Amino acid sequence: MTRTIVESQTKTAIIGFDQPFCVIGERINPTGRKLLAAELEAGNFSTVEKDALAQVACGATMLDINAGVVYNSNPNPNETEPPLMTKVIEMVQALVDIPLCIDSSVPAALEAGLKVCKGRPLLNSVTGEEDRLEAILPLVKKYNVPVVAISNDDTGISEDPEVRFAVAKRIVERAADYGIPACDIVVDPLVMPIGAMRTAGLQVFELVRKLRMELGVNTTCGASNISFGLPNRHGINAAFLPMAIASGMTSAIMNPVRPQEMEAIRAANFLTNNDPHGATWIKHNRPPVAEGEAPAGARGAREGRRRRRSS
Amino acid sequence: MTRTIVESQTKTAIIGFDQPFCVIGERINPTGRKLLAAELEAGNFSTVEKDALAQVACGATMLDINAGVVYNSNPNPNETEPPLMTKVIEMVQALVDIPLCIDSSVPAALEAGLKVCKGRPLLNSVTGEEDRLEAILPLVKKYNVPVVAISNDDTGISEDPEVRFAVAKRIVERAADYGIPACDIVVDPLVMPIGAMRTAGLQVFELVRKLRMELGVNTTCGASNISFGLPNRHGINAAFLPMAIASGMTSAIMNPVRPQEMEAIRAANFLTNNDPHGATWIKHNRPPVAEGEAPAGARGAREGRRRRRSS
Repeated sequence: MTRTIVESQTKTAIIGFDQPFCVIGERINPTGRKLLAAELEAGNFSTVEKDALAQVACGATMLDINAGVVYNSNPNPNETEPPLMTKVIEMVQALVDIPLCIDSSVPAALEAGLKVCKGRPLLNSVTGEEDRLEAILPLVKKYNVPVVAISNDDTGISEDPEVRFAVAKRIVERAADYGIPACDIVVDPLVMPIGAMRTAGLQVFELVRKLRMELGVNTTCGASNISFGLPNRHGINAAFLPMAIASGMTSAIMNPVRPQEMEAIRAANFLTNNDPHGATWIKHNRPPVAEGEAPAGARGAREGRRRRRSS
Repeated sequence: MTRTIVESQTKTAIIGFDQPFCVIGERINPTGRKLLAAELEAGNFSTVEKDALAQVACGATMLDINAGVVYNSNPNPNETEPPLMTKVIEMVQALVDIPLCIDSSVPAALEAGLKVCKGRPLLNSVTGEEDRLEAILPLVKKYNVPVVAISNDDTGISEDPEVRFAVAKRIVERAADYGIPACDIVVDPLVMPIGAMRTAGLQVFELVRKLRMELGVNTTCGASNISFGLPNRHGINAAFLPMAIASGMTSAIMNPVRPQEMEAIRAANFLTNNDPHGATWIKHNRPPVAEGEAPAGARGAREGRRRRRSS
């Protein structure tokens, strides 16, 4: 059974077919968030702090940390991103204790993150592009961390799922040459928007199943991409996630603050027998007890809490 | 490609892997509905009428008709159910034009329904029990209708999905002996409550996939059974349905009046490329146009509606 182990200093998250779905919180990422980008350039980390706490409170298993901001004062990310990555990771891991996912397209920023990140973070990402394989796989080996493998290569992103599978397979093989086991590769099969490509959903479901059956790897994706440009995106995402889980997907980079998607994931965990006795489901969905009907014990406990609050 | 054709006098519903999920409205069924049972015994069909119209308005593909009420005045369903089935079907098909599913455990009630039902109804159901096979398959052949095949037999309902698959296979083979093709068998693999059996969800997903891949049959189920006894049942159902659809399920007997489940199904149709260009999704989720922003045509139409309402 494939298990990808990711750790903070104190907590372990396991990505695996027999585990609750791994929710990688996507919010700490200035891409497309102008206000956050401006804050980071100004050295203001209040939104990062708020997003870290909110995502953990909503049930994130792991937090993605992307510091890919393009400064107005210096447009070279090779210079600006590594020190910012260091700073954001130090700040976040001082604040919350779940494992982190170091996310950058700048190899120096990935290594800067690896140097300060405690435990065993997930590295995000390598692709099938030659220069990326050569830059990232040695880091994966050196720091003994798992890595997200995105299934595009030097020819770009293929619309043919067979080609994307072949790219993923090649990354797994190249990683093996470095002594990196398949359980440390989390493949992102690439999710296209169904608004642009009608077969995008079916492609992902088939690819995930094939990646699981034939390569035995865990999988992840940028889940909300599926609904790009469409109305009621949360409704689409909330069906896509259980369908991907039923097909074998084991994690996603997504917004854990969205209740509809998180409820769908909790239900899917229960339905795949990864929520023993439905304990998590029941905890989140316990029906409210009417005042008059509350058993004495429960009422007492509730009143106790009130008293403590008002004291 | 397996296609099960079900027809009313004027409309055709196709159950198939390349079709939108077939929603069989479950509401017209006195089982567990004391008020409806009492109404039917008193010859009052107002709830049936209301349920028929509401289910069609909410997007049911087909309506299940069950007249299995136990009269206080006569506890023998063999006497009471056939004439009631006749009456309910005649009433419903005078009111709505979608295909019907004739649902009974009383063979005489099934035949009474077949006699008055226009078009090509779905018969619900045969099991793997010897006496049921011998009573129902000749009806299926005689009236040339498709039939729901429930995967239990004389030994009961097995908890082993392999046994349930074997029962389904035997029904398909027995039907073939009568000249009934596999495309006219819609297998119900039997959905157990996850509250009672932790692997119930996984079992259904695996069985549906196997039934589709190995027997090439369409499938259905009593969907809400999965969440029996649990809090926030709609949340579980709304994840279960897309997961079952991703596994290959093509229809369910369910309550189409529930918006959460129906939204999940519309999203799943889009994600399996069975909602071309997302037309149905977009129609149901068009963002509201603010008064000031409405194009003249839309505003005119809206005001036209208002005028008609107030006249």
